Amino acid sequence: MKTVGTVQELRQFLRPLRDRRIGLVPTMGYLHEGHVSLIRRARKECDVVVLSVFVNPLQFGPREDYDRYPRDLDRDARIAEQAGVDVLFAPSVEEMYPEKPLTTVTVSRLTDRLCGASRPGHFDGVATVVAKLFHIVEPDRAYFGLKDAQQVAVVERMVRDLHFPVEIIPCPTVREKDGLAVSSRNVYLSEEEREQATVLSAGLREVAEKVQAGEMTRSRQVIDYLQGRISSKPLARIDYVDVLTYPDLTPVDALQGQRILVAVAVHFGSTRLIDNVILPEKEEVPCSER
Amino acid sequence: MKTVGTVQELRQFLRPLRDRRIGLVPTMGYLHEGHVSLIRRARKECDVVVLSVFVNPLQFGPREDYDRYPRDLDRDARIAEQAGVDVLFAPSVEEMYPEKPLTTVTVSRLTDRLCGASRPGHFDGVATVVAKLFHIVEPDRAYFGLKDAQQVAVVERMVRDLHFPVEIIPCPTVREKDGLAVSSRNVYLSEEEREQATVLSAGLREVAEKVQAGEMTRSRQVIDYLQGRISSKPLARIDYVDVLTYPDLTPVDALQGQRILVAVAVHFGSTRLIDNVILPEKEEVPCSER
Repeated sequence: MKTVGTVQELRQFLRPLRDRRIGLVPTMGYLHEGHVSLIRRARKECDVVVLSVFVNPLQFGPREDYDRYPRDLDRDARIAEQAGVDVLFAPSVEEMYPEKPLTTVTVSRLTDRLCGASRPGHFDGVATVVAKLFHIVEPDRAYFGLKDAQQVAVVERMVRDLHFPVEIIPCPTVREKDGLAVSSRNVYLSEEEREQATVLSAGLREVAEKVQAGEMTRSRQVIDYLQGRISSKPLARIDYVDVLTYPDLTPVDALQGQRILVAVAVHFGSTRLIDNVILPEKEEVPCSER
Repeated sequence: MKTVGTVQELRQFLRPLRDRRIGLVPTMGYLHEGHVSLIRRARKECDVVVLSVFVNPLQFGPREDYDRYPRDLDRDARIAEQAGVDVLFAPSVEEMYPEKPLTTVTVSRLTDRLCGASRPGHFDGVATVVAKLFHIVEPDRAYFGLKDAQQVAVVERMVRDLHFPVEIIPCPTVREKDGLAVSSRNVYLSEEEREQATVLSAGLREVAEKVQAGEMTRSRQVIDYLQGRISSKPLARIDYVDVLTYPDLTPVDALQGQRILVAVAVHFGSTRLIDNVILPEKEEVPCSER
């Protein structure tokens, strides 16, 4: 595996490979099994696998965890190589933003709710850095995890609206044995928080079954149930619980006959976790089969 | 010359040519000698020349001339073929915007003044459609006329900020024998307006000479002179006269020792004309040598 830190080195590496199918897995590093599942999928489908590791300051709010976001490039490089990455692109902030950026890519409406409402500017930062990465790598396919379902919806819409010559491959959320969605931020959790945080996946499992069994037919029921279930955990502080159509992210009342996203964001101490389920369900990847 | 109306046809045409140097000349059609000079330059420097003709509704304000903007695709096709275009891309509005676009590319600060101040949203529309065209065509080089100097500055900044793999080639303004900058909008002018409109290029010539001779050393002198000169024409209604650094477009007082843009926008009847000079000057292309 080759590791490069500059746009120029990366482009030079990719130049003779332009006629091959190039897959990009864009990440903020501190790789976990979720990222590994994206890399494995890219490895299966593409000739060249590019992994980017960049903690993008633009997508963090002023009171968010940019500074303390976990970083360990040596560990990332070992995991990436083992998972089948051909080239690891790990640029500095100065390399990605050599001057104060004046250009922003904004996706409206889809970003009004959920994490877009809680984290103003977050999705501008995401869309802008993804556009940059697409221009730097020029991939044929790019792999994103559905744990960030709103991010997938936003990137897919940006690609369609701006005619990016890239195919977005959304990949299922990877979970720990007890159901917790894997996330770089899980390392922040205390043992007690970690234990109580399983309420997110458990609650989402429960509503998924109730909706699919026809026991819940309205968004309000789903939201009320999840709010009650999550609030039963003393360390949980709910940011949002919402039900929207997917991938159009519009509010919805009756649940039957459409694809819906049930999404939650919950603080445990200073750590904010997100999780979701898209109904009707496709398969998810349990940790044991990673 | 091949003419295509859809993104798919264009990509299909370009697919076997991807290892050649592709030049894009993006236009709103109703081709004039300014466009022809861009095409000829692209023809000289590139293996494949793509001309896009698209009157982009996104860059027109609600009270602007989108509906009456001149269009004549047959004429454009004849001129394009003669000038050396390989493929003319003339998509419909539905082809470029198959659904309500939610994604916008915004370049801040550079768009606060000049045409950006007079035409709110204009440069969002320009940046967004240029991003789309770059993704559709994937050109190596793209050719823009310096008559729209602010547009060139905005597009160059967008390319740099978002790492587009495209080289922007700014090309000098082409002028009629009497100095009027050629523009598709010149067809709107009455004979009397047309005659008085020469005050723009004449005034700009005069200040260029005075600045280069050291007779004018401050922005204020340039602005006062031009305002007086243009106001002497009874049919002229000034939108703006401004002096900024180029290409950074920041206000400037002392003129020596930096590259500056002297730019004007003036209404003659219902027609809004723009013109500018960048100092110190490089060569311009007179009509006789086109």
